[in-house]
Amino acid sequence: MIIQLKQDIQEADKLFMEQVLNQLKIEFYPVQTQKGTYLICTPKQEFDIRKIGHLKGINDVHRVSGNHKMVSHKWKVDRTVLDLGDGVVIGDGNLSMMAGPCSIESEEQIDKVVEALKANGVRIMRGGVYKPRTSPYSFRGLGMVGLKMFYKACNKNGIKIITEIMESSQIEDMLPYVDIFQVGARNAQNFNLLEALGEIDKPVLLKRGISGTIDELLYSAEYVFKNGNEKIILCERGIRTFESAYRNTLDLNAVPILKEKSHLPVVVDPSHGIGLRQHVAQMALAGAVVGADGLLVEIHETPEKAATDGQQTLDFKEFERLMTKLNQLKEIIK
Amino acid sequence: MIIQLKQDIQEADKLFMEQVLNQLKIEFYPVQTQKGTYLICTPKQEFDIRKIGHLKGINDVHRVSGNHKMVSHKWKVDRTVLDLGDGVVIGDGNLSMMAGPCSIESEEQIDKVVEALKANGVRIMRGGVYKPRTSPYSFRGLGMVGLKMFYKACNKNGIKIITEIMESSQIEDMLPYVDIFQVGARNAQNFNLLEALGEIDKPVLLKRGISGTIDELLYSAEYVFKNGNEKIILCERGIRTFESAYRNTLDLNAVPILKEKSHLPVVVDPSHGIGLRQHVAQMALAGAVVGADGLLVEIHETPEKAATDGQQTLDFKEFERLMTKLNQLKEIIK
Amino acid sequence: MIIQLKQDIQEADKLFMEQVLNQLKIEFYPVQTQKGTYLICTPKQEFDIRKIGHLKGINDVHRVSGNHKMVSHKWKVDRTVLDLGDGVVIGDGNLSMMAGPCSIESEEQIDKVVEALKANGVRIMRGGVYKPRTSPYSFRGLGMVGLKMFYKACNKNGIKIITEIMESSQIEDMLPYVDIFQVGARNAQNFNLLEALGEIDKPVLLKRGISGTIDELLYSAEYVFKNGNEKIILCERGIRTFESAYRNTLDLNAVPILKEKSHLPVVVDPSHGIGLRQHVAQMALAGAVVGADGLLVEIHETPEKAATDGQQTLDFKEFERLMTKLNQLKEIIK
Amino acid sequence: MIIQLKQDIQEADKLFMEQVLNQLKIEFYPVQTQKGTYLICTPKQEFDIRKIGHLKGINDVHRVSGNHKMVSHKWKVDRTVLDLGDGVVIGDGNLSMMAGPCSIESEEQIDKVVEALKANGVRIMRGGVYKPRTSPYSFRGLGMVGLKMFYKACNKNGIKIITEIMESSQIEDMLPYVDIFQVGARNAQNFNLLEALGEIDKPVLLKRGISGTIDELLYSAEYVFKNGNEKIILCERGIRTFESAYRNTLDLNAVPILKEKSHLPVVVDPSHGIGLRQHVAQMALAGAVVGADGLLVEIHETPEKAATDGQQTLDFKEFERLMTKLNQLKEIIK
Repeated sequence: MIIQLKQDIQEADKLFMEQVLNQLKIEFYPVQTQKGTYLICTPKQEFDIRKIGHLKGINDVHRVSGNHKMVSHKWKVDRTVLDLGDGVVIGDGNLSMMAGPCSIESEEQIDKVVEALKANGVRIMRGGVYKPRTSPYSFRGLGMVGLKMFYKACNKNGIKIITEIMESSQIEDMLPYVDIFQVGARNAQNFNLLEALGEIDKPVLLKRGISGTIDELLYSAEYVFKNGNEKIILCERGIRTFESAYRNTLDLNAVPILKEKSHLPVVVDPSHGIGLRQHVAQMALAGAVVGADGLLVEIHETPEKAATDGQQTLDFKEFERLMTKLNQLKEIIK
Repeated sequence: MIIQLKQDIQEADKLFMEQVLNQLKIEFYPVQTQKGTYLICTPKQEFDIRKIGHLKGINDVHRVSGNHKMVSHKWKVDRTVLDLGDGVVIGDGNLSMMAGPCSIESEEQIDKVVEALKANGVRIMRGGVYKPRTSPYSFRGLGMVGLKMFYKACNKNGIKIITEIMESSQIEDMLPYVDIFQVGARNAQNFNLLEALGEIDKPVLLKRGISGTIDELLYSAEYVFKNGNEKIILCERGIRTFESAYRNTLDLNAVPILKEKSHLPVVVDPSHGIGLRQHVAQMALAGAVVGADGLLVEIHETPEKAATDGQQTLDFKEFERLMTKLNQLKEIIK
Repeated sequence: MIIQLKQDIQEADKLFMEQVLNQLKIEFYPVQTQKGTYLICTPKQEFDIRKIGHLKGINDVHRVSGNHKMVSHKWKVDRTVLDLGDGVVIGDGNLSMMAGPCSIESEEQIDKVVEALKANGVRIMRGGVYKPRTSPYSFRGLGMVGLKMFYKACNKNGIKIITEIMESSQIEDMLPYVDIFQVGARNAQNFNLLEALGEIDKPVLLKRGISGTIDELLYSAEYVFKNGNEKIILCERGIRTFESAYRNTLDLNAVPILKEKSHLPVVVDPSHGIGLRQHVAQMALAGAVVGADGLLVEIHETPEKAATDGQQTLDFKEFERLMTKLNQLKEIIK
Repeated sequence: MIIQLKQDIQEADKLFMEQVLNQLKIEFYPVQTQKGTYLICTPKQEFDIRKIGHLKGINDVHRVSGNHKMVSHKWKVDRTVLDLGDGVVIGDGNLSMMAGPCSIESEEQIDKVVEALKANGVRIMRGGVYKPRTSPYSFRGLGMVGLKMFYKACNKNGIKIITEIMESSQIEDMLPYVDIFQVGARNAQNFNLLEALGEIDKPVLLKRGISGTIDELLYSAEYVFKNGNEKIILCERGIRTFESAYRNTLDLNAVPILKEKSHLPVVVDPSHGIGLRQHVAQMALAGAVVGADGLLVEIHETPEKAATDGQQTLDFKEFERLMTKLNQLKEIIK
């Protein structure tokens, strides 16, 4: 059960309400986000909403059965729309493209990608500066130096930045330069990081765990929301299976199911989802067709020379062809 | 290595060729299909094709590295096109729809589906008469009685029939009534059945195993081809993973990869691939977008009353809407 | 619900009972095995057993909730013990060893294995004559010629034979020479084969499917039992997962769970379960420790020269060492 | 390639060596642990060790092919033995028991467990104070308050403490009270945490990821080692598969394979590995039989009242019976 409080609720009314809940022996969690004030209740038995619905300061009370509360479609019927400023919006029914290299490498590299994005009307650039790598002997990213470079080039071109964060201690430094914080598949259940990201006021894109279930992804989102941040994007990026003909098994089933269960926008990453450059565009189109709100695509001027993930990265011509096809799809998708 | 022989090769030339191969200690398998005569060679070392290329009766010699031979795209560059007669073709670049109920139930049921197919220009009807069921206490299908009913209704309407076969002993009875024999996921590696289907001259649709790899699906096709039947269709129908929010994980990655590795047509079954009626149409569209040659969709007049699989079956209106969307997609896909 | 009938029930009493069930609208399946006569009932609602318990000819009535009926531990508390004759018993609380080569290759090979078995007091020999192979170009086994060889050598030494059957059409020829029919992982849901094996009076060992669930394995056993054969052995042989450091993931969890759910004996195949010769013995010991009724182990005089599966096959010395360790474990296991 | 330097190597010799490697264009990573000083080299081509073997200050040079370096058995033949003080040792060939509740709940609870451990000669107690939970609405542990309680009770009884850490920021506070830091399955690839734990001088137990591969577990260990901490324990705790009859699939195959690939001690967690109290003891015995250096077992005075994981927790009598059986196994295992 979710009790949505009035924004201007009096402290005394709030306290009274909490006393009532305590008397009724209903466990509750106060949640204060950018957009609202809530009490999440997890009553053990069926509970008659009328017992509290009349209390002062309540905006609305929603029954939310099931395990997920704040991220559930059951209480919030309208889909969440994220406004990044400068006309960049995610979740409004249009397909939001996020493209860029796996790793930020150099100013020159960034500039070239920015040009390619502008040529295709893309407003969000991806690029890693902290790279989680299976082996400690692999390239780990340029860190804050890279992020500042990244910011400089994007900022003057009205391009928004999405980049991965690996630990809560990085938030403070990264915050001024990042528009969307990405949590990678390996950190999908790093609850300390999720809670820390719940305390900021910038969108957080959550990648599904390497073998994460749809339920777990929603719970991870619940962690962010419960700590105060409603600006969440869910991302399907392929799961681990026994198949070895490609990198991951892109689970497009997850898209309509996530959109049915949750009000949050859903993005597809076809680059990691298949891991093979020659097939990325087809999987991107499929992602759009099943209802994704956005696509996260790896592009690079010369994929074969990319510091990381070159084998799944599109070059600019391939990306342009993909954008053309996506534009043709637009009417059909709606 | 595949040696493609001339159709009119003299028996003496063939014998001589086999003697040469024996002398060169190259293991070979003679294959005689509806369309050609081949010697499949599996030499253990690198082999100089010129040592045999000049022999009489040879049409062509193809180097085919990798494990799959006859089904590989490496020797047969042109895609396989299957002509079922009466203008029904699979693999020619158009999307072939195969729709119908999970189980054949009654004449009335069949007639209604036939009408729905005709209204949408669909030429192939699916319907099970032998049903592999996990539990022996479930409905097992109407058998030959059902198949004859099925045939009667389809034949007079120019509709082709695809239905599942479970054991080689059923071939003889079923052969006159079936246009495409379907091998189910549970029989994907029933090699005796595959070999028996290699001896007939009707198309065989092979579903990927419940947790079958792409490689295994191609090997299963190789069994059919090697025994003499080139008319094979590959079908992606979802794999088993840890996710329980839906029935199977539809692996759309498999479609471009199968088409890259093999010359055989590839069909997608979104009904089993997600198992949830409300999402089947979206997954069907995605199947078309990633390059499927056809779709296998479960439809029924009243899905909620269907003998089997009702929860993943479209009603006629939902099917019509899907067909409209698929038609809109046509130009983009090409 | 399982109604166990008296062996000497009168036909009239049986008919009357069926009429009563029909009147009560309870679906039922008559089952006649080597050991008993049963009516399996699948009532849709809660049902008061007293409504039928008094009828003539009834031995016992068991409530069996859950999906599995005949194979369930709920109605049959005593564990099933299989007597193969000549003092060879499976499921009596002792560990039954079944060892031998993956493939039967020659008389000489068989004789050597037989000697090794006798030296270690092993009474059941495994050996394949029909080999299900992923690729059609692999060795497929010696067929009936091999089976007869196998029988000749074992019969005179009091050794029982377990070998794989691939299709119901093989039963008739194989029956005189086989003591236990093995159904391989790829045929775990070949329901026609399972039903055909339900009609014979010899034990059937069912391997779990390649990614088969515990439930599915029990359902496959239910098929055999329902068709009349109570002599069933369940076999855990490893499942397919994402891990590639070994062949299959031996699921030893399955052993105590199968023994909890079912009264049937459970056997472990450590050879396929890990697929690496140097680790087979350790996994065999673990299988014994978790409660297996038997072990199925691949042995060969010279594993490196074996026609198939040499990389997971023990030589005779390794096997002897394993037997010594297993004997030491005996007291602890009980 | 691993260059093991002399402990008393002169700074000048070290610099010279690095210059030589730079000239040879060999990438290298200096590693300084509690026990040694190393240069890890990842040459791209075959490299003749003699080119550097004569340099001053080198103790030994080891060729280590494969991806794992410091954790590999290839350079360190002797197994790693961890001495926790007060006679508590892990990896010396004896089975090290680590037992205790899932969550630390109260002083009384801890005292009772301590008594049970002492009665069975167990020297290491497990107990969570920071609990990673899928849902933010679940019990999250008592934190530092609980850890201090835990320490007080154990310290006076000579019992060592293993407990989970979730974020690097917790290390400083926890360090004085913890003997072994456990990294949970969800943090198996939290590289920032792993690196931070590489900087302390206390043992780190790494749980395999929820669907982590054996390779990935070794890489995670490599992160800790490379950052300076050689005191690492690997832990198999079950992987995620499609099977739902139990909690996780305990992968006992992983034990002999980890011990073959790495010199680090390997521990098995049968409690999470099967997740069902009635079967934990059997899986624990199996873990011992396949060669585990230790077992991590959940116990509680009254499992049904435990704050978390009660369904997989042994009571004290069950634990005592398990210890008795493990003692009986001792001779056979060796």
